[in-house]
Amino acid sequence: MSEPEPIPIVGGTGALGAGLALRWAMAGHPIAIGSRSAERAEEAAAKLREAVPGAAVEGLLNQEAAHREEVVFLTVPFRAQSENLNNLREALRPGQILVDCTVPLAAAVSGKATRSLGVWQGSAAQQAQEMVPEGVAVVAALHTVGAPTLADAGAELDEDVLVCGDRKADKARVARLIELIPGLRPVNAGPLEMARIVEQLTPMLISVNKRHKIKHSGIRITGLPG
Amino acid sequence: MSEPEPIPIVGGTGALGAGLALRWAMAGHPIAIGSRSAERAEEAAAKLREAVPGAAVEGLLNQEAAHREEVVFLTVPFRAQSENLNNLREALRPGQILVDCTVPLAAAVSGKATRSLGVWQGSAAQQAQEMVPEGVAVVAALHTVGAPTLADAGAELDEDVLVCGDRKADKARVARLIELIPGLRPVNAGPLEMARIVEQLTPMLISVNKRHKIKHSGIRITGLPG
Repeated sequence: MSEPEPIPIVGGTGALGAGLALRWAMAGHPIAIGSRSAERAEEAAAKLREAVPGAAVEGLLNQEAAHREEVVFLTVPFRAQSENLNNLREALRPGQILVDCTVPLAAAVSGKATRSLGVWQGSAAQQAQEMVPEGVAVVAALHTVGAPTLADAGAELDEDVLVCGDRKADKARVARLIELIPGLRPVNAGPLEMARIVEQLTPMLISVNKRHKIKHSGIRITGLPG
Repeated sequence: MSEPEPIPIVGGTGALGAGLALRWAMAGHPIAIGSRSAERAEEAAAKLREAVPGAAVEGLLNQEAAHREEVVFLTVPFRAQSENLNNLREALRPGQILVDCTVPLAAAVSGKATRSLGVWQGSAAQQAQEMVPEGVAVVAALHTVGAPTLADAGAELDEDVLVCGDRKADKARVARLIELIPGLRPVNAGPLEMARIVEQLTPMLISVNKRHKIKHSGIRITGLPG
């Protein structure tokens, strides 16, 4: 079997991106960490190679990373989502899948992390779908995984990842990448518009964390076969 | 120990109300089933006494049921919520807790059950809070339990119930009633405004059910202590 292609993470130097990169590296999967700064991308890559000896990881400019593989993860905060999508206009090409992990927390505009912003298009993912070049499909996922938990290599994961998108095949493809991380179970939650609800789970879980004085709660869907 | 007071269920002849009544009766708790029609309330009560021999259950007009106990459950569909709250204006009194289980599915106006309506106040529960008499506190809960699953006495429950409300003591009181039903774990999800998100879980789970060809999926919060 040939070496799998690296997973590109736009915003891979941020908390969520770095956490995912660590987990995929731990699973033996190659990673392309993207950043606005090639230097910071390479720093993050070096740090990851130190944390996971033998990890196949490179640091690139976001545009270079996004151009690499068919499935691209966008892990920037909501405040930076539009800017990043603007910067990716020339890099993304038809046939690619952009996995948007953005959550429109009110914290993006100095509000509470237990509240969310109304996004004109209905959800951050639908905003992304409007902004990507024609022929690029957006899939929404990974909103409820906790960056600090991902970043803690010793922490066991045990939760579901709700995946929204308009094409079953796209969601299945993203699901296979999510499944590479032990303890995460992807669950097809419906079309991309369902991101309106799935993105809201994050402020709700932050509220649960506060109420129960815990660092991370996750979502599990009961009643699924298998 | 004296006999516990009956739990009043406004709309107790509907699918969710009847399902909850069955489960509380199975747990040995007395119930007051409310309906707009005293006759239908008594019919439902008789049916419940047949299903659960020895069940302490009475059928009453909604207004009579709501006047009985301090914690009142409102289990009507969203389409009927305002009408019912109008009818309860004279029946409810300060100090009572109204547990709103309403979900503003778009199905209420012939839309899809996988979509929801925007409610002016932010959520059905907040609409209820605006409509109840001064001094009545609204708690939102039980949106994601499935009426057919509750109504199937042989079906095992195994899921969480997210509880929203502005006073911790009110939520704890409602939680104790929910805990009477084996397999349901109440989880404090935050203030009443969090119902904006929690009410949305129902259309999301309906979408999950469709995608996975199952009858009922539920919510579980991972990472909680105990």
